[in-house]
Amino acid sequence: MVMRGEGATSGLLTDLYELTMAAGYVQKHMDALATFELFVRQLPAQRNYLVAAGLEQTLEFLERVRFSSDEIAYLRGLPTFQHVGKEFFDYLADFRFSGDVWAIPEGTIFFPGEPVLRVTAPIGEAQIVETSLLSTIHFQTLIASKAARVTTAAAGRIVAEFGSRRAHGVEASVLAARAAFIGGCAGTSNTYAGHRFGIPVYGTQAHSWIMAHEDESEAFANFLDVFSGKSTLLVDTYDVHAAVEKIIALGREPGGIRLDSGDVLSDSRWARARLDGAGWHDVQIFASGDLDEHRIAALLRDGAQIDGFGVGTALSTSADAPHLGVIYKLAEITDANGIRMTAKYSEAKKTFPGRKQVSRRSDSRGSYVGDVIALEDERIDAAQPLLVPVMQEGKRLAATSQPSNVHVREAQQRFVAAREHLPQHIVALEPAAEPYPVKYSARLEELSEATRRALVQTTS
Amino acid sequence: MVMRGEGATSGLLTDLYELTMAAGYVQKHMDALATFELFVRQLPAQRNYLVAAGLEQTLEFLERVRFSSDEIAYLRGLPTFQHVGKEFFDYLADFRFSGDVWAIPEGTIFFPGEPVLRVTAPIGEAQIVETSLLSTIHFQTLIASKAARVTTAAAGRIVAEFGSRRAHGVEASVLAARAAFIGGCAGTSNTYAGHRFGIPVYGTQAHSWIMAHEDESEAFANFLDVFSGKSTLLVDTYDVHAAVEKIIALGREPGGIRLDSGDVLSDSRWARARLDGAGWHDVQIFASGDLDEHRIAALLRDGAQIDGFGVGTALSTSADAPHLGVIYKLAEITDANGIRMTAKYSEAKKTFPGRKQVSRRSDSRGSYVGDVIALEDERIDAAQPLLVPVMQEGKRLAATSQPSNVHVREAQQRFVAAREHLPQHIVALEPAAEPYPVKYSARLEELSEATRRALVQTTS
Repeated sequence: MVMRGEGATSGLLTDLYELTMAAGYVQKHMDALATFELFVRQLPAQRNYLVAAGLEQTLEFLERVRFSSDEIAYLRGLPTFQHVGKEFFDYLADFRFSGDVWAIPEGTIFFPGEPVLRVTAPIGEAQIVETSLLSTIHFQTLIASKAARVTTAAAGRIVAEFGSRRAHGVEASVLAARAAFIGGCAGTSNTYAGHRFGIPVYGTQAHSWIMAHEDESEAFANFLDVFSGKSTLLVDTYDVHAAVEKIIALGREPGGIRLDSGDVLSDSRWARARLDGAGWHDVQIFASGDLDEHRIAALLRDGAQIDGFGVGTALSTSADAPHLGVIYKLAEITDANGIRMTAKYSEAKKTFPGRKQVSRRSDSRGSYVGDVIALEDERIDAAQPLLVPVMQEGKRLAATSQPSNVHVREAQQRFVAAREHLPQHIVALEPAAEPYPVKYSARLEELSEATRRALVQTTS
Repeated sequence: MVMRGEGATSGLLTDLYELTMAAGYVQKHMDALATFELFVRQLPAQRNYLVAAGLEQTLEFLERVRFSSDEIAYLRGLPTFQHVGKEFFDYLADFRFSGDVWAIPEGTIFFPGEPVLRVTAPIGEAQIVETSLLSTIHFQTLIASKAARVTTAAAGRIVAEFGSRRAHGVEASVLAARAAFIGGCAGTSNTYAGHRFGIPVYGTQAHSWIMAHEDESEAFANFLDVFSGKSTLLVDTYDVHAAVEKIIALGREPGGIRLDSGDVLSDSRWARARLDGAGWHDVQIFASGDLDEHRIAALLRDGAQIDGFGVGTALSTSADAPHLGVIYKLAEITDANGIRMTAKYSEAKKTFPGRKQVSRRSDSRGSYVGDVIALEDERIDAAQPLLVPVMQEGKRLAATSQPSNVHVREAQQRFVAAREHLPQHIVALEPAAEPYPVKYSARLEELSEATRRALVQTTS
């Protein structure tokens, strides 16, 4: 953990080129107002949709980002900045993010090309915050989108996020827990995330508890003593059948048992029968250990007797798709010469100009039937606009300032409700034969073509 | 970014079950001294060796981990702890990590089964810190090991880590930069990592700088004005050839040009010839954009004219192997009854008992020929022991307390020197037909078998 105290809001948490560009804008007195849009270029092969997450941390960062005098001195000492005038360092000393931000709320389902976040700010400010915005939204969206699949596979059974130890560092473990909750998990093993975000926490004992006792029965009895009986006991340290028999022999009904290795399918069925035979119908069976959405779906399809799943590495690293093609592109710029639309037209990396809104259409039963990406001021009939204002002049708006525990719970509810409205082949674990329909409005296509023509004239 | 100030050293940064087990040990007065060893179970298919990293942050955490009264109150309020007595909460209030730690230094090459870190501490302490230890060592080791491959592919050319925006959050971006430097990168785009760890920083401008100007030539000229000529200019926003011609027409020799998309192979060869034709032999050519070790190797094999590479997502997420099977296992326990050896014997998950040391043998030319994992007190002739003491009674030893910038630079030097001694087929990018030889000592095999027999007697 390297960032403590003020470090967590450091303006240096950015790629150097954002700072060199900012220096260029300041020194050249380019005080244009820029609009950047953050979106995902395309879906990984194993995803049919994405779940927005990370907005709360993004807005916290934007409100608090500063440069300390020590950090400014560091930049001044870099060879890169040796010819840059005092004006830029004064700019950094006074630096505040003063822009407006629109975003789609956390827990919203979205698709490639749709702006998740739109920043309108003086261009230097909009550039300096780019890197942190991208990494924060990218990571939580990645994990929430994976959690969505895992919880879909679990078909109503509890899923707890257990992946802290394999997440990409300590902060990632906390934010993975938060994002997994948004994606439908019931809770997490990460205790810090439990405290910080009010997420339910799960966990009882590891193999080391059993191994720390010379006798497995004593290990079970001791645990039940301390936690007054309602605990889950880990039964696969030596031999699952023997362990379950020892618990029954103790005559003290636990809250549950956990299988962490071996043939979970057959062990769960055997254990359910044995526990029921002892009259212990309420003892729940939990499974963990190298689980993901496919393994969970297969277990349930084959009749595993499992009441809840702990999912670790596959979830906290989004192991089958550990990154998304998330980008932050200049869409429009306003300076003394007026408004200018901007876009990229290279083949694989085309972007669209202008400030955009995403509108979602539903059929009469509420099912989503398709989205339209249009210019902000276009009127799309009978559709729900997804982007809402979340920050004005650098301050969070009331709707995005609720306590963290309320925020994350609402985001989860938003996702769970939205999933019900997605077409079934998009919710499915298998790659969708037909993607969810997303189109650009006619006006946006026209503007894109006009901008391209203007650009060809200027640059050739 | 959720962890600020004291949060970064919170004892809650752990899986809940570590805390329930600790409560169990406290309430049951089990004050055993435990030894846990942290190691990787097996290599991902795409790795032939690993590079240790993350020790500095691990030791910082161990020195500083605490429970605040607010955090203790949170735990007290959880249903799980409602029957747990005051003794445990008093224990948390006074909690300090007081253990001894041995570790292999950062930048050391290691292999599956070899302990990277060994903790000997009162068992509750050793458990509570498990999750943060694992996530910190796991993540940086993952990235350093990927960087080792990328820098091997670059064959002496500069590699800068450019992946902050796709790393798993803001902290991960900083630590990825640190770990990538250990794995041989020349530097990073992450400015915070540059400041915090004294790592060289790289970066000049993005497409947005070019797009913020109506005229590309003006964008180049403005940048050269501000940074006095020695900058790298991004030439692929619209058309690479046209952009290079514009720079030559300006008559101002830049430090370099950067290609971020398109046919980098052919563009780099064309650009080298054109720049040389203009007499600009010193202008360097940098490439970036979806690079990894395989793409770099292919570019160089095909004769690309590239002086340095910026590598992003593939490096900062270790995209082809985004996690390692890193574990932390109880190896030995000492209590009132004496020392007891512990291990797991399930088929896929066997571990070895006892406190271990790893010894590395070299041939007469210094090439590594094989490692032996043995008990700590065994004497392995003509071999270099890898584990060294790094913390005693919760305090870092002098050798691991040097400034962060010195520490990371030494780690990089250690890795770069060690790579020279690895067999060529292990350094290679292709999966090794024969793994690097690692064996367990005869005494360790005997102890393992004796421990297994004792366990069978106890547990059956």
